[in-house]
Amino acid sequence: MSQNPSRTSRWHAHNTRLGAYLGKPEEDGWRRRWYVIIFEAEKRAGRQFDVTLLIAILASVLVVMLDSLPSVHDRAGTLFTVIEWLATLLFTAEYVMRILVVRKPWRYVLSFYGIIDFISILPTWLAIFAPEMAYLIDVRLLRLLRVFRVLKLTIYFEEAQILLRALVNARRKIFVFLGTVFIITIILGTVMYVVEGPQHGFTSIPVSMYWAVVTLTTTGFGDLVPKTPLGQFITSLTILLGYSIIAFPTGIIGAELVSSMREAAPRSPPQPASRACTDCMTNGHDTDAAFCKRCGTKLPPHPTETANSQ
Amino acid sequence: MSQNPSRTSRWHAHNTRLGAYLGKPEEDGWRRRWYVIIFEAEKRAGRQFDVTLLIAILASVLVVMLDSLPSVHDRAGTLFTVIEWLATLLFTAEYVMRILVVRKPWRYVLSFYGIIDFISILPTWLAIFAPEMAYLIDVRLLRLLRVFRVLKLTIYFEEAQILLRALVNARRKIFVFLGTVFIITIILGTVMYVVEGPQHGFTSIPVSMYWAVVTLTTTGFGDLVPKTPLGQFITSLTILLGYSIIAFPTGIIGAELVSSMREAAPRSPPQPASRACTDCMTNGHDTDAAFCKRCGTKLPPHPTETANSQ
Amino acid sequence: MSQNPSRTSRWHAHNTRLGAYLGKPEEDGWRRRWYVIIFEAEKRAGRQFDVTLLIAILASVLVVMLDSLPSVHDRAGTLFTVIEWLATLLFTAEYVMRILVVRKPWRYVLSFYGIIDFISILPTWLAIFAPEMAYLIDVRLLRLLRVFRVLKLTIYFEEAQILLRALVNARRKIFVFLGTVFIITIILGTVMYVVEGPQHGFTSIPVSMYWAVVTLTTTGFGDLVPKTPLGQFITSLTILLGYSIIAFPTGIIGAELVSSMREAAPRSPPQPASRACTDCMTNGHDTDAAFCKRCGTKLPPHPTETANSQ
Amino acid sequence: MSQNPSRTSRWHAHNTRLGAYLGKPEEDGWRRRWYVIIFEAEKRAGRQFDVTLLIAILASVLVVMLDSLPSVHDRAGTLFTVIEWLATLLFTAEYVMRILVVRKPWRYVLSFYGIIDFISILPTWLAIFAPEMAYLIDVRLLRLLRVFRVLKLTIYFEEAQILLRALVNARRKIFVFLGTVFIITIILGTVMYVVEGPQHGFTSIPVSMYWAVVTLTTTGFGDLVPKTPLGQFITSLTILLGYSIIAFPTGIIGAELVSSMREAAPRSPPQPASRACTDCMTNGHDTDAAFCKRCGTKLPPHPTETANSQ
Repeated sequence: MSQNPSRTSRWHAHNTRLGAYLGKPEEDGWRRRWYVIIFEAEKRAGRQFDVTLLIAILASVLVVMLDSLPSVHDRAGTLFTVIEWLATLLFTAEYVMRILVVRKPWRYVLSFYGIIDFISILPTWLAIFAPEMAYLIDVRLLRLLRVFRVLKLTIYFEEAQILLRALVNARRKIFVFLGTVFIITIILGTVMYVVEGPQHGFTSIPVSMYWAVVTLTTTGFGDLVPKTPLGQFITSLTILLGYSIIAFPTGIIGAELVSSMREAAPRSPPQPASRACTDCMTNGHDTDAAFCKRCGTKLPPHPTETANSQ
Repeated sequence: MSQNPSRTSRWHAHNTRLGAYLGKPEEDGWRRRWYVIIFEAEKRAGRQFDVTLLIAILASVLVVMLDSLPSVHDRAGTLFTVIEWLATLLFTAEYVMRILVVRKPWRYVLSFYGIIDFISILPTWLAIFAPEMAYLIDVRLLRLLRVFRVLKLTIYFEEAQILLRALVNARRKIFVFLGTVFIITIILGTVMYVVEGPQHGFTSIPVSMYWAVVTLTTTGFGDLVPKTPLGQFITSLTILLGYSIIAFPTGIIGAELVSSMREAAPRSPPQPASRACTDCMTNGHDTDAAFCKRCGTKLPPHPTETANSQ
Repeated sequence: MSQNPSRTSRWHAHNTRLGAYLGKPEEDGWRRRWYVIIFEAEKRAGRQFDVTLLIAILASVLVVMLDSLPSVHDRAGTLFTVIEWLATLLFTAEYVMRILVVRKPWRYVLSFYGIIDFISILPTWLAIFAPEMAYLIDVRLLRLLRVFRVLKLTIYFEEAQILLRALVNARRKIFVFLGTVFIITIILGTVMYVVEGPQHGFTSIPVSMYWAVVTLTTTGFGDLVPKTPLGQFITSLTILLGYSIIAFPTGIIGAELVSSMREAAPRSPPQPASRACTDCMTNGHDTDAAFCKRCGTKLPPHPTETANSQ
Repeated sequence: MSQNPSRTSRWHAHNTRLGAYLGKPEEDGWRRRWYVIIFEAEKRAGRQFDVTLLIAILASVLVVMLDSLPSVHDRAGTLFTVIEWLATLLFTAEYVMRILVVRKPWRYVLSFYGIIDFISILPTWLAIFAPEMAYLIDVRLLRLLRVFRVLKLTIYFEEAQILLRALVNARRKIFVFLGTVFIITIILGTVMYVVEGPQHGFTSIPVSMYWAVVTLTTTGFGDLVPKTPLGQFITSLTILLGYSIIAFPTGIIGAELVSSMREAAPRSPPQPASRACTDCMTNGHDTDAAFCKRCGTKLPPHPTETANSQ
């Protein structure tokens, strides 16, 4: 309850900071007008601008996808080229405009979104010289991160942040896990290369390692399979033993989520009885707190005190 | 303790409300008699009616299934057609009857169960004109939701509700997860289309995306596999890194269940008698406690003492 | 702490009860001597008897396994037949002996272990008439449950009981899950049968359902794969959406284990400060208990009271 | 808080003990100089020595891997042989040196790291007589455990220890799980051998057991698949029922991690300053609390306030 506003206000603060550092022009000319259109999603013009971008992004990604289908390419190839160039021109114009209207262009160019915006327009231009570059247009999907704000998806950002924080908290455990899997992969790959050998498809240690990754993660394509009894025995053992190791990512993520949800729990809406301080309106007090942790005022008694003894 | 009765009573309330809104006819004629048969599972006639429906549903689904086996179709095709039509006629008669006996037919027709009942009888009729419609008969399985009440499966509904609530609580996290997987799928699909190309089976980006979904979820059919060293390397990295992301659904669901079970625990039916001390009203005593842990007063005997020995 | 002894003593009580109901013969003849050998694992003769059985069980299962290897069968077939018959004769003799020495033979014959003992010796005898019956010898593995006592594996039984209890507690959730998967399987199987059809291997609805189970559980053999674009699209969607459902068993089991471990936690050795009552020596009191829950005596103050406030 | 220092100091104590038992030579000659180089990672010479070893280990493993690629082997085979021998000579020299400089050589030779050091240099020497021994060079990866100290990876060791402890705590549950899976594997393998038989690839019971392991873990290579309707039915049932069992490792590990993280939480480094109230000594205040929640006294400022803003 207190978390949410604070997080949202942090978000606003972030935007304000961003605005400050991107430098909203002070004079009232076209630069200011365009600044509002490009950077302010709350205004009507800004909303329309964002929706146009959103459609352009999705259209250009969809075009790349459909264009790879031979049958569709033959029929609609020219249309696709037109759409792709229209989107690219729009993004290029937008990119140039952004540089023109902000007070400190280099700060924008070198910012996270500035780089994404730049590499989003690059592929089509480069594809003039190297056609297969066109496939990099998918990078535009990352621009969705920016345009999502128009859809009022803030609540999803919060949930994404919870998941991301679980991943960040667990990063060391996951590195240890990946390291362990990597070493098992090398050893298992080498063993299977020696046991099965090139005649059964394990043509080199890197290929065997690819098989080991595919097997340990229980993906099991089946393009490479152990054919010798010894190889099948080693595989069975490795899968069974490795299964306990491969259970770690899920366990780690689950444990992190449980722990982060427990932290969040006492302030979550389902337990409305988190008493607010009568003096400073702070809430989120522990159930056993008798005094406000912000201002020290005596708190009202907890309504569910007896029910909480479990 | 309070949860269960309230939930059951909510269920009853729901049924009562349903009855009220479906309008039990007041006159004592055939409509009232049939209303009891169709809507009231507690009476004997209603029970028999429900069991007949249950058998008809299962029989018609089984018939569709077996009829698809060429060898069985040749031998028992005619029998199957008869059974299918009998079931359809029964369901149609039931549907018409329901409309006739309730006071406000349109409310029933447009209700959740009304729509299911309607699309359950549709396929056989449509199959006269378009034979492959017959396979839609499986929709009848959804009617099981209604007939389950005859089996006194309420307790399973409660458990299903816990699972469903976990899914609902986690819906935003799961959307974020699906969105992330979707973007990874597009990027990985495009990359593999460029790297492997049509000569190795990755004939288009949508096909590559299908491969990416199959790989990321560790299903790994093996119909499409990376054949170039670079493709195998990218696949290995993606699987290993993606494995941490794919661990999220399990982690999310697990965490939600842990948290919902913690909330439910003190009120759950297996511990119906968390006795309160008669002196200081403290509750939360262990089931084997004989004295209040706060004030030392003798506790009343535990009502489910013998039942707890497992 | 208190849990363990009580569970062990329950185990002993169980054995004692078993002994009582199987009827230890009172006269001091050969029946009593054999009773000790067969039923009492603590005595030296009984131990040797159990070890012999253990070896015979493992040997006969190993023989069945190796005998299925054509190369080994040719070389050692006769030896295997001899071992198998020796084991069967031993088990038959043991079975007859058990019936002879207990006071109430029928109670033994109809008990859980009595039935296992009987069907363990059946296959070899039946194989005289129907050779493939010989493979049922694997049933003998279930006899391991009985002989495990000789290995002092009680602690593993306790852990197995925790896992089993988690499974039992989660049984309704798992039934709901299996039911949901079953319905999804039927619908997905029918849809894929209609979409892909017999020409792509989906020769009937049961076969499609087999494919659906293999796909939904992310096993993905790859013997049946969608070949039409629509089929691949439906498969991708189903896998992605179904992945959230398939995450349930792990989540359910994990949540049950977390909850059962939390219950067990306050009495587990890592937290030795669970105070014992100075009067009746009962321990396992809650950390906030001030009086003994068994006898009502005042408890000593909790040593880690302040540390526990988190 | 108390955990970390104690663990680190245990680590130091371990090193000190190691130093003591390996016997640092007291005279100031070459043995002492080399002792510092080899055993003391804090000194500059020691650091350089460790980095050299790290590079040599990785280089020699990489060489084994690349050498298995036929195309690379043809071009760079001689170079690889040279690198491999250089690394082996370096490791041999290091091994001899370690024996020479420590006071009690046998204690080192028989220690954990002494054995790893020895088997790391063995393969290349043995490969003179038996070429395929060369692949055992991967054992050198285990030496990374020793050299990791140079990278200041202590924090990762701690995380690894948490994961390892979860695995150790869960070892009995995992043994029970593996035992259950093993018995299911034998029974399922036998059943499928009888049902499918050699004509469908299930050539023997061990091969069927390999298939059962691959199937139960949802790896599903697809090299062996049930082809008879009965086999497919049994497979579907087994997968669905077995899926609940196979969910255990993840659930077990997850539950252990949740429980170990709950224990570790109040003492973990991210919250180093759970401030105690100066008046009533209550601790466990939220990091944003300014007043004691028990008595309302002003709390000391939080030392890591700025670091906590993330």
